[in-house]
Amino acid sequence: MDTPTIAPDLQELLLSAETVDLRAHLEDIHPADIAEAITNLEADKRWEALSKFEPYLAADVFSHLDDDVQERIIAALNRAELAWLMTHIPSDDRVDIFRRLPEERQESLLPALAHAEREDIRRLASYPEGSAGAVMTSEYVTLPATVTVDQAITRLRREAFNKETIYYAYVVDENRRLLGFVSLKDLILANPQERIEDIMHRDVIFARAHDDQEEAARLITKYDMFVLPVINGNDAMVGIITHDDAIDVINQEHTEDMEKFMAIAGSHEAGGYLRTPVMEHFRNRVYWIMGLAVIGLVSGTIIHRYEETLASLMLLALYMPMLADTGGNTGSQAATIIVRALALKDVNYGDIFRVLFKELRIALMLSAILGCMTFGRVMFLSRGADVPEGMTLPMIGFAIAIALSIQVISATMAGALLPIIAAFFKKDPAVVASPALTTVVDITGLLIYFNTAKFMLGI
Amino acid sequence: MDTPTIAPDLQELLLSAETVDLRAHLEDIHPADIAEAITNLEADKRWEALSKFEPYLAADVFSHLDDDVQERIIAALNRAELAWLMTHIPSDDRVDIFRRLPEERQESLLPALAHAEREDIRRLASYPEGSAGAVMTSEYVTLPATVTVDQAITRLRREAFNKETIYYAYVVDENRRLLGFVSLKDLILANPQERIEDIMHRDVIFARAHDDQEEAARLITKYDMFVLPVINGNDAMVGIITHDDAIDVINQEHTEDMEKFMAIAGSHEAGGYLRTPVMEHFRNRVYWIMGLAVIGLVSGTIIHRYEETLASLMLLALYMPMLADTGGNTGSQAATIIVRALALKDVNYGDIFRVLFKELRIALMLSAILGCMTFGRVMFLSRGADVPEGMTLPMIGFAIAIALSIQVISATMAGALLPIIAAFFKKDPAVVASPALTTVVDITGLLIYFNTAKFMLGI
Repeated sequence: MDTPTIAPDLQELLLSAETVDLRAHLEDIHPADIAEAITNLEADKRWEALSKFEPYLAADVFSHLDDDVQERIIAALNRAELAWLMTHIPSDDRVDIFRRLPEERQESLLPALAHAEREDIRRLASYPEGSAGAVMTSEYVTLPATVTVDQAITRLRREAFNKETIYYAYVVDENRRLLGFVSLKDLILANPQERIEDIMHRDVIFARAHDDQEEAARLITKYDMFVLPVINGNDAMVGIITHDDAIDVINQEHTEDMEKFMAIAGSHEAGGYLRTPVMEHFRNRVYWIMGLAVIGLVSGTIIHRYEETLASLMLLALYMPMLADTGGNTGSQAATIIVRALALKDVNYGDIFRVLFKELRIALMLSAILGCMTFGRVMFLSRGADVPEGMTLPMIGFAIAIALSIQVISATMAGALLPIIAAFFKKDPAVVASPALTTVVDITGLLIYFNTAKFMLGI
Repeated sequence: MDTPTIAPDLQELLLSAETVDLRAHLEDIHPADIAEAITNLEADKRWEALSKFEPYLAADVFSHLDDDVQERIIAALNRAELAWLMTHIPSDDRVDIFRRLPEERQESLLPALAHAEREDIRRLASYPEGSAGAVMTSEYVTLPATVTVDQAITRLRREAFNKETIYYAYVVDENRRLLGFVSLKDLILANPQERIEDIMHRDVIFARAHDDQEEAARLITKYDMFVLPVINGNDAMVGIITHDDAIDVINQEHTEDMEKFMAIAGSHEAGGYLRTPVMEHFRNRVYWIMGLAVIGLVSGTIIHRYEETLASLMLLALYMPMLADTGGNTGSQAATIIVRALALKDVNYGDIFRVLFKELRIALMLSAILGCMTFGRVMFLSRGADVPEGMTLPMIGFAIAIALSIQVISATMAGALLPIIAAFFKKDPAVVASPALTTVVDITGLLIYFNTAKFMLGI
């Protein structure tokens, strides 16, 4: 629990201690905490410390390191060291690391591995990134349907050492087709002489290897699962996804959603904020920002087209920023709610009319209040302003208030509609980024503003 | 898997079938799917369907219902029905439901429950909402340190029925102080005659009952845990938090973060988007939006103060919205990255100078590019515009570009700084909502804009 205070001592220990001495000390420390201490060492001391551990602890600690730290360590390893590491690491992490190696290192590594590991990597690496197949592990236990409970427990005992979990065992036929599953709890409670096929659960919830990883995480969430089995196109079982991988997927997707929503591009595999180089942060942000600036030319052109209107009634120019802000705020609120509801599968695109009707009613209420506030604002802020002949300040205030009310309604509807349309076209709703929405709402807002003013004030 | 097509049949079955018939059909269907079918029934048919199930299945299905559906069902139950339900439901859901009952129903319910359930509710209900204590369950297995492995397995077998998990058992002393834990895997692999104290793990990771639920979820994530034990102020064990509860906490916190960030208030316990009434959606949004409109008075006042400047150079007014948009976009990007990095503990407020230095470099690059684009934009859009005596269009374009560059730097720094300051004061960084930041950036942006123009153009 007290990681912050333990860490410096641990670091010193990692650097100075002899192998034997170290082993006794590390027994009580969680691999995640050792990984934190390793991360805080200087880059060239990290492998030196790791190589003092026994293989399985070293591999376990290594799995807990951030991707970018892993990459830097691996870059400095020779072929034998890399093969040693890859042999002891869990299968899902192994393929993950393999994927990120340069091609020539991938090719030189494979012959240095034992047949089983080599085949496992080949198989898992064939699934595209972001798929359920790419996050699964092949370290699970299978049972034939015909063994007894007693035989099954013996088998679990024998295989416990190198499997990710023995709490769920999967019953498969000779083609590895998934027939059912039993939990260790079921086995403990059953009569030792019963057959597995008589006690197994046949209602298995599973994912397909090509499903999106997010869909797999959603199944684990919905059904409160500890482990989710994964099957391939031939209905053969190929792996499991565990609850901790599901949490990682959920956190990663959250970050992506929020960043997309704020128009930040880029991959999210790499390590933390501080370790990401300035140039990469810059690249992740600049394209969208430049794109928005280009789209901004449209609203610039509109403003220029109405230059005459603005010149004849300077007051209109003063309230342009307010209109843009309010439209952007109400539109982003609606978009946030709908993006999140779509992500949690609270709504889908079939609900489009129910959503729009609901948002319309909310927008009407918001527009009534904000319209009144705007009228008050104009009357207060511009109380001494010059008003062109034939107009009064209340007339102008009323026109601005009406324009703003229409803008609030249109922005809210746009904020709700765009994510649903994105979902319909199987795009991620979060790409209807808040800045992108703001830019769209700016354009419609200006048109609403100038046309309302022209119509109501006759300029 | 095929929930969408199964659901209508299941609904019909739930309404028509006799109790006996129903039981056979439901065996193969996951409680989460039954809960979905129940939700789709008319409100007054829901309890009718549930009450046909055997008690533990009914309670299990009920736990999978959304909060608002649960509430509507409970509102129609009499005291005996409610007591029946509360007796069979898991302990963490029970206290959750209890908390949401009106006070007079709470008081009438307690005497109708058995002593054990009554005490359990009293104990769990004493922890504040949002704390680890409020999401934990008391259905876990404890063992004395002195029993043998064989005795421990017998005990797990006996208690398996009504415990949330038997895969981890906690070793406690006579004061329930946590000494260690053993997994069922350890027990299966150990010699049956060994004593628990000789095989237990003493390095227990735990949460305190008064810790934030988010902190508990973070421990589960960091240490890839299946179950996290919870202890009280006297170091006595009081409950466990399971991985599925951690996922719920993570999803809930993420929704809250995103909504706070977009200035949407309100609780997030209640059900989905469509079931939340229009008035509640309205209330969740209106206060912030009104608040922002009031703060907007400040930028309105600033614009009014520089009315003379604007009148003498109309071109400045035309580029006000662009300045506000670009500042808002770059500031929100920085804020998003930092809010997320703080949430994932990638950075904390001690890193403030490293973060600011990094953001400064990113901002300088962004401002260089956007400044050039702005100069080009003015030259292109305003190529035919009237320019006051003594100025040239390139001069004006240059001044606007410089103002925008300063604005990009100041907005990026504000976007990075405000969430860190919030974290320092132990506030949620996400309260530095994107609309709130936009409003702040608007105000500084206008001051930068008018003063740069006055200084460089001498107006």
